[in-house]
Amino acid sequence: MRDAYRQELEAITAGLEQMAQLAASAIGRATTALLEVDLQLAETVIAADDKLDDLQRDLEERAIAVLARQQPVATELRTVVTALRISADLERSGDLALNVAKLARHRFPDHAIPSELRATVLEMGHVAQRLMAKAADVIATREVTVARELEGDDDAMDDLHRALFRRLLDDRWPHSVEAAVEVTLVGRFYERFADHAVSVAKRVVYLVTGEHTDPPSDESAGQQWGQR
Amino acid sequence: MRDAYRQELEAITAGLEQMAQLAASAIGRATTALLEVDLQLAETVIAADDKLDDLQRDLEERAIAVLARQQPVATELRTVVTALRISADLERSGDLALNVAKLARHRFPDHAIPSELRATVLEMGHVAQRLMAKAADVIATREVTVARELEGDDDAMDDLHRALFRRLLDDRWPHSVEAAVEVTLVGRFYERFADHAVSVAKRVVYLVTGEHTDPPSDESAGQQWGQR
Repeated sequence: MRDAYRQELEAITAGLEQMAQLAASAIGRATTALLEVDLQLAETVIAADDKLDDLQRDLEERAIAVLARQQPVATELRTVVTALRISADLERSGDLALNVAKLARHRFPDHAIPSELRATVLEMGHVAQRLMAKAADVIATREVTVARELEGDDDAMDDLHRALFRRLLDDRWPHSVEAAVEVTLVGRFYERFADHAVSVAKRVVYLVTGEHTDPPSDESAGQQWGQR
Repeated sequence: MRDAYRQELEAITAGLEQMAQLAASAIGRATTALLEVDLQLAETVIAADDKLDDLQRDLEERAIAVLARQQPVATELRTVVTALRISADLERSGDLALNVAKLARHRFPDHAIPSELRATVLEMGHVAQRLMAKAADVIATREVTVARELEGDDDAMDDLHRALFRRLLDDRWPHSVEAAVEVTLVGRFYERFADHAVSVAKRVVYLVTGEHTDPPSDESAGQQWGQR
């Protein structure tokens, strides 16, 4: 492989890794903004989302350029196509972090999350950030073993999501319907964020092994409606 | 352009159009299942989602094959890359219709949607189906004028979504928190479904004109938190 070609492919991978790191950081900071009622931090997360969108656009242009110039085949072709798919997952993850930050801003100076649920939401934020940071590693290293771990790691998110819903649906829910609506949406944002991290990992597994595991379809709805 | 090449590109476009038609049909039938408490119809929608997933996988393989064999450049290259992005939007739209059908199944034989909200949800289903049917046309015809209409059409969904939230957040909400949670999620599923239809149209506009309009980021959260 010529050097220029290799560099173009490496730049695409580096762009994806950077996007994943930004998404991980965004969900972490959005969670802090939400739970600590920090308007300034929420605004930072909201402003930073443009960067992720720009990176995605750059990455798409780079991918198209490398397809046109290098006409890759086989593994390199799949690398570029996979990069396009992964970048869409990461851009969407950024939007979900943005939604969390927007709720913090909307509710400021009040708490959006009732006090007895904050520990659960904090843990959802940690799990989401950890999953995405791991996805960033997987993008860089292509370590299939680590990539496969993400599915198991995501079970922690499912458990937290279920715990959140149990509280919501408890007959003794002492808060407003508005609070219930907001907690419902927040729970879904974290759950979907985690799904995207898992999806990234699965795409890397496919790239390396050729084994198609289904991308995580949206199981959250089925879960919360099927298993409580 | 050689015939074989042209046929491969046409097959990709036909596959996308079929996916969009299936997604439009799925949201229409899921809405009927939800509002008419029709378990059998809900099961049909749930089973049909596999077909959309299969079509997406086929389409991705076709796209990779055409990139490898024909090494397209310029417009044809952008067509193939855009097809990959559009297929992801359509697969996700199918998941959202699936979520609506799963709620209908979960609640059966009860109504999931309180009677006074059914007209609004019915209208959301109609708008969603219409938007996606129009997106299917846009895929086939590449008519930029029609594609650009979708954004305006989506305003109807935003209005319905806001109306739904006003009812939810009315102090006199007479139903359970569980009902509020379910209505919240259903509202979000329709809103996101419509966003994906608009996103498809915008990608076609970009393909034809080279003008980048931002794909609809997730405005629903900001909307419901910012403007009521």
